[in-house]
Amino acid sequence: MRVELIALRSRPIGRGEDLVEAFVSAAREAGVPLLDGDIVAISVKVVSTSMGAVRRLSDVSPSSAAASLSAETSLDPRFVELILRESDAVLGACRGSLLTLKGSQLVPNAGADLKNSLEGFASLWPRDPDLVAWRIMMGIRGATGRRVGVLIVDSGLRPLRRGTSGVAVGSAGFNPVRSYVGLRDLYGRVITMTSHNLEDDLASAAHLLMGEGAEGTPFVVIRGAPVEITDGLPAGRSITPSRCFLVGPLIFRGDPGG
Amino acid sequence: MRVELIALRSRPIGRGEDLVEAFVSAAREAGVPLLDGDIVAISVKVVSTSMGAVRRLSDVSPSSAAASLSAETSLDPRFVELILRESDAVLGACRGSLLTLKGSQLVPNAGADLKNSLEGFASLWPRDPDLVAWRIMMGIRGATGRRVGVLIVDSGLRPLRRGTSGVAVGSAGFNPVRSYVGLRDLYGRVITMTSHNLEDDLASAAHLLMGEGAEGTPFVVIRGAPVEITDGLPAGRSITPSRCFLVGPLIFRGDPGG
Repeated sequence: MRVELIALRSRPIGRGEDLVEAFVSAAREAGVPLLDGDIVAISVKVVSTSMGAVRRLSDVSPSSAAASLSAETSLDPRFVELILRESDAVLGACRGSLLTLKGSQLVPNAGADLKNSLEGFASLWPRDPDLVAWRIMMGIRGATGRRVGVLIVDSGLRPLRRGTSGVAVGSAGFNPVRSYVGLRDLYGRVITMTSHNLEDDLASAAHLLMGEGAEGTPFVVIRGAPVEITDGLPAGRSITPSRCFLVGPLIFRGDPGG
Repeated sequence: MRVELIALRSRPIGRGEDLVEAFVSAAREAGVPLLDGDIVAISVKVVSTSMGAVRRLSDVSPSSAAASLSAETSLDPRFVELILRESDAVLGACRGSLLTLKGSQLVPNAGADLKNSLEGFASLWPRDPDLVAWRIMMGIRGATGRRVGVLIVDSGLRPLRRGTSGVAVGSAGFNPVRSYVGLRDLYGRVITMTSHNLEDDLASAAHLLMGEGAEGTPFVVIRGAPVEITDGLPAGRSITPSRCFLVGPLIFRGDPGG
């Protein structure tokens, strides 16, 4: 099996610009026609910018909770206020970051980011990123006639690792998880609980080419990936904190009924 | 930029078999000559098997601590005993898994695994996986004359996600982290703290093709990745729990001096 990752350079994408048009142009200029089954990975930053999911910090009045967390994290209190508004729960604070729950994700700063955002602005995750991915997917399918999937990618953190790696924010048009339950392992035994999270593997693969700085490659076409293309929204990517092997034991330590 | 991922099928690899020879054969049979700059990603399972890093469960006598954690996790008490021996610290327990610290990694079950292991055996992570990767790298470089890197890959978990994605266990021959500190973002501002964890992005990309079942593709050649090839061991991939944005706030909640 061969999988190909093709990074597409793009001119900067402004507020209100048509992302489908920007992608199709970038693919045309690079001489990369899409194929059925391709996954189009898109940096969340250009999704947020094009949709206007950015906030001017000078428009934000920090609450007293934000001021207090600002002292704890050394973050701008207006930026903290945005994070508090964007997050479903704040689980902890450390220098430079708030650890938050947003939707079903455990994410620093609720996805809000100052880097690669216009001076004085913070970019936010789009509302309902799966639906956003679905709309972009329908646009690209309409423009190209190809049955592709779309994946919105952010830089994420992994436990105890230095530096960021890629994480899926939202997607459409392919099954994010493949269950192996009922299949057999190399030695012929039936597998009872394993699933493969294709979506985050794809997001990390794309993030490898997107980089963290001024690369200017917000689009990565992933070709030949072992995914099942669908027409709809993803399902089954998340588990609740109490069922999570990784954070469950940390969050619910001393409270096993949680 | 284009990155290519090429999965190589391999016959089953037994205990004591020469992994370098197995890889070189697999590459030859697939008609995939290596190039300078390639990263050879290898499933930790075949590394463990070839090195004999497996234990027969019937040889293990569970301690009382293992028996107690067996009741809590529903895991075989002999398997729990192996996990206790393999881990530096146990941070939590839930059904089906112990959350452990091993070396500088936060990992379920200290890397021990029953799946895709011989009946009645558990496979363990190799001791000093970076050094193991370095030796394999030197072997492959010697056999092929190509200046490649080596990456040992396991299935890992991400917070609140269903299913596994790839994680780096050890590596050699390339810089695992690229710092962006001092570089500029898209808007020309100097970046003050971001790094890119290339190693885990590479591991996830490889894991996409390795799969979780009987795929029989323990080797993935990664071509064209934006990595800096070196001759030595990796450095700088880890941070301490107290400095980790993600688990620091969870582990040290209520103990900010931790």
